[in-house]
Amino acid sequence: MLLWILRLRIEMNIEKTIQWVRTDSLNGVSRMIDQTLLPYEYKKIDIKTTNEMYDAIKTMIVRGAPAIGIAGAHGVVLAALESINCSDFKAQVVKKANYINSSRPTAVNLSWAIKKQLEIVENFNETNEKIIELLIENAIKLEDEDIAINKRIGEFGSTVIPKGGSILTHCNAGGLATVGYGTALGVVRSAFEKDSSIKVFANETRPRQQGARLTTYELIRDGINTTLITDAMGAYFMKMGMIDVVVVGADRIAINGDSANKIGTYMVAIAAKYHNIPFYIAAPKSTIDSSIKSGDKIVIELRDSREVTEINGKTVCASNVNIINPGFDVTPASLITGIITEYGIFKPEELYKIFE
Amino acid sequence: MLLWILRLRIEMNIEKTIQWVRTDSLNGVSRMIDQTLLPYEYKKIDIKTTNEMYDAIKTMIVRGAPAIGIAGAHGVVLAALESINCSDFKAQVVKKANYINSSRPTAVNLSWAIKKQLEIVENFNETNEKIIELLIENAIKLEDEDIAINKRIGEFGSTVIPKGGSILTHCNAGGLATVGYGTALGVVRSAFEKDSSIKVFANETRPRQQGARLTTYELIRDGINTTLITDAMGAYFMKMGMIDVVVVGADRIAINGDSANKIGTYMVAIAAKYHNIPFYIAAPKSTIDSSIKSGDKIVIELRDSREVTEINGKTVCASNVNIINPGFDVTPASLITGIITEYGIFKPEELYKIFE
Repeated sequence: MLLWILRLRIEMNIEKTIQWVRTDSLNGVSRMIDQTLLPYEYKKIDIKTTNEMYDAIKTMIVRGAPAIGIAGAHGVVLAALESINCSDFKAQVVKKANYINSSRPTAVNLSWAIKKQLEIVENFNETNEKIIELLIENAIKLEDEDIAINKRIGEFGSTVIPKGGSILTHCNAGGLATVGYGTALGVVRSAFEKDSSIKVFANETRPRQQGARLTTYELIRDGINTTLITDAMGAYFMKMGMIDVVVVGADRIAINGDSANKIGTYMVAIAAKYHNIPFYIAAPKSTIDSSIKSGDKIVIELRDSREVTEINGKTVCASNVNIINPGFDVTPASLITGIITEYGIFKPEELYKIFE
Repeated sequence: MLLWILRLRIEMNIEKTIQWVRTDSLNGVSRMIDQTLLPYEYKKIDIKTTNEMYDAIKTMIVRGAPAIGIAGAHGVVLAALESINCSDFKAQVVKKANYINSSRPTAVNLSWAIKKQLEIVENFNETNEKIIELLIENAIKLEDEDIAINKRIGEFGSTVIPKGGSILTHCNAGGLATVGYGTALGVVRSAFEKDSSIKVFANETRPRQQGARLTTYELIRDGINTTLITDAMGAYFMKMGMIDVVVVGADRIAINGDSANKIGTYMVAIAAKYHNIPFYIAAPKSTIDSSIKSGDKIVIELRDSREVTEINGKTVCASNVNIINPGFDVTPASLITGIITEYGIFKPEELYKIFE
């Protein structure tokens, strides 16, 4: 009974990171937390056009693979609303959807969700208004499913967290990276519901500091014991016996289990292997790209050099230095203990079974 | 002939990072670059008291194991000048020297240089003025020897850099960490004199950003091709085949080869091992602590939490987060290919031979 009340409290507390909001019978906006302002300011903004959505994804107002999947789904609704009076309605929607899809290449959830929406556009011979209504319904369904999926990921994942255990995570795979609850941080939340003595070590995650800015914000708000560390400290704490398990999210997983995630994840995985510490990926099935046989085929986004050379608007290095700023890296399956999904925990070499 | 001219140019260009400057026949100051202001401002400050010297080391106005060794030597001169009229001159000097020695625990060079100076205080039965003169002469000798030692380290180390090779380094073991030329960056400079096509990848080195602030400043000034990366990117570039060798400095080396260096070095060493990339420590003999059998005995300094929570004066995380901020970690001998000293390159297991 107590557990049920606790769970209800947590479910009711989930405020969607990104949500379609109707403004009249047909029109609406994509309302999202502006994550570039956290932890200093909690502010929601309304995205009203496909151009705004492209920019919101590109500049990481919304980020996190599952969340930008939903942003893509909303983007197709906006594309349809903008094209409602066009004689070539369907072609226009596809064109605008492809533009949004080009905003970030690595996370597969964006193209996955856009594809789901375009199937509706292409398969239904209805009025434009009716198609838009179907797109809105599907977007809201994807939002709700995302939370439900994360809850299941959390439930499965919590079984790998030892009592009083200490979890290292990188970047933010939390409620803010999804519609709510989180993938890697969903595992943390689910473990915390059962055992409030668990602890989290959060990598700050340079260059964009999602760990410092977002993960500490989420976890401290929920009352979870959280220690912020710089990205190069992980191995030290592993050696000290202070890390029991690593859990991170993913942006695209090849069918052999190779997993792309925020730059730096690979380094953590190598250190975990060296210390015989289990390393888990937590991600929904929609992050698995069954068309890709191995991680070598995953496109790694190269981002603006100022993410490295500037922090809080101030330059931190000499001018004229070279910068290469990959947004992601690929952790090979050989370093991954298990992939935690809404269908259970898979060894990398058995991941293909999720499609059977 | 051309090489000789080039070398002369480089030698003449060496401006001491830290230097004893006489203000009259007996008195003087320790003049040092304020490294907390770089790369924005190049400014020298004069340290005139033992209390100022304690603070300068503690707050990292001067940093880098060899440089704080010289700071310690200067500190003993200041201690003697402050005690010149004391009846218990020698006891006062020892007391003040011990205070300076307590400013930072990990780098052995500080206590090594202070011990060298205190041997003069204890072994000579001369006037206080004469002892002070001997201390000043010895301090200046240590400064000049440091540059000469770094040159020899560079000469030996340059032999491990392949033609056109790419060197990853962490923190700043450069001219700024020494009196001049540098240890790890001395290796880079020496390799560059022979082959200007070499490249450096510099880890930014959170939390204090010595790599971003100091290493890029030094190397760009010298015209060396330098790429700044965040600390979690190293493994990515190793996997891409873009790193040929890792060279870093050290703050204290146990006789078995275990080496303490800036936090994050251990993580780089693990990643280098995983990719079969050679990993070298470059450090003078004075960094080797023959009294310590293994790295387990090295005291790791814990530093102010604000180094992690604040960047450029702005908080980067939620409040109430826990911080543990170790300044150093220990890389075990098993991950070290060789230790580059002024006496040659030693395998960790043969390091003891340097004392024979």
